[in-house]
Amino acid sequence: MPSQLLTAPFLLLSILVSSAASFEPLIQLPKAITTNDRKSNVDNEVFCASWHLSVETNNAGSWNKIPSRCLSFVQDYITSQRYVSDFEIVANFSLAYASSVEIAGDGKDAWIFDVDETLLTNLPYYQAHGFGSETFNETSWDAWVDLAEAPAMHASLKLYNELKRMGFKIFVLTGRSENQRNATGKNLMWAGFNGWERLLLRGPSDGGTPAIVYKSERRSVLVNEGYRIHGSSGDQWSDLLGFALAKRSFKLPNPMYYVG
Amino acid sequence: MPSQLLTAPFLLLSILVSSAASFEPLIQLPKAITTNDRKSNVDNEVFCASWHLSVETNNAGSWNKIPSRCLSFVQDYITSQRYVSDFEIVANFSLAYASSVEIAGDGKDAWIFDVDETLLTNLPYYQAHGFGSETFNETSWDAWVDLAEAPAMHASLKLYNELKRMGFKIFVLTGRSENQRNATGKNLMWAGFNGWERLLLRGPSDGGTPAIVYKSERRSVLVNEGYRIHGSSGDQWSDLLGFALAKRSFKLPNPMYYVG
Repeated sequence: MPSQLLTAPFLLLSILVSSAASFEPLIQLPKAITTNDRKSNVDNEVFCASWHLSVETNNAGSWNKIPSRCLSFVQDYITSQRYVSDFEIVANFSLAYASSVEIAGDGKDAWIFDVDETLLTNLPYYQAHGFGSETFNETSWDAWVDLAEAPAMHASLKLYNELKRMGFKIFVLTGRSENQRNATGKNLMWAGFNGWERLLLRGPSDGGTPAIVYKSERRSVLVNEGYRIHGSSGDQWSDLLGFALAKRSFKLPNPMYYVG
Repeated sequence: MPSQLLTAPFLLLSILVSSAASFEPLIQLPKAITTNDRKSNVDNEVFCASWHLSVETNNAGSWNKIPSRCLSFVQDYITSQRYVSDFEIVANFSLAYASSVEIAGDGKDAWIFDVDETLLTNLPYYQAHGFGSETFNETSWDAWVDLAEAPAMHASLKLYNELKRMGFKIFVLTGRSENQRNATGKNLMWAGFNGWERLLLRGPSDGGTPAIVYKSERRSVLVNEGYRIHGSSGDQWSDLLGFALAKRSFKLPNPMYYVG
């Protein structure tokens, strides 16, 4: 215990002193990063963890690619217990909130789920495609969707079933297109999901619409039909922001890619 | 300027070293977990990192206290290079966005900063008060505010100065009360901040108003005066959400306490 007590100040000292020298540019990137350089690895770990937090809090705004120095960070994270744990904690907070909602019994209490990296994990696909570091390839992606074998995110499946049991109507709202309806429905059922109220996909007229607008428009339709959207779960801020918002939104982690 | 850059770290060091002696009783580690129990520590680390992410993404919603098993996690984080790095990355994203804003030259381009755990760090105070694990004590907090010696968050100071240089009008919007105006202004200047357009504090009529409403109302006034609020930086979601929103909001990390 005493050794722990002394660690923090000295650690902070070394951080502060070392950062004081490189204070002028906001982030002083090491000039040359070698994998043998232990300090650089530590620096990378800290930088990438900070980058990830900024992605998850939407501070990063629109972004195209994982910073190259963070490829192994993202790979480690997405295949780690942390990723599973992050989903579990979000599911716990979602469930705690859901339990506080009074279900009216008129069948109009709704919860919205996104599909990819929310209900389902495409880890097998991204594992074979650079964990989001490669440019999006529609052909290989479509082939993967047609396989209909994306596994369930376990915490989401558990949450989904609990919400259904509590009386929420489940709406599945995905950026996948209408011609992927069969494969998507098949995949969801294969992974254990069933009993959704509606599966909403991009129709031909949604073609060029940004995800945040498309999803807001679909939520608007539900609101106009009298649904009360209590909760919304998604791995992209474009699942959650815009208009016709859910009363509470739950952001699931995804450092692999950004959808605006 | 260089001397100023060096002052703060050494100041912080002296605070940390002097408080280290009274460090022992402040942190209550959970009884059941011993430092020899490696698995529990790993589990705790993962759980607490997930909890922290859910706090920062607003998944946690309103919360009162750090989970007891996460006290040492929060302590380690808040005194770590990660915390400093998290601020730097957010400042970088803020600056990248600010650079994309076209400054009209009519003096109406605005940026809003919160004070506590945004421009200033109250680490010396929280270090002596359980890192947010103790119930808020107004008397000791007011005494700390009156001292007017909360250090600058370096990344925020740099961002603040850059934004000012770019032509943004800076509004400092804090939940501190009007009778702390002098101490707050004095502290900000002591920490290196100057040239703000307005320092906005809670007046007598704001007494029981939730932070999210009070801050939205103040932003509304600015919007009605013709200001374009391009950016807003704060460590609480109540700094950033509500109405009369900034075009972009930047959430700074704070796992110590929640303000609704």
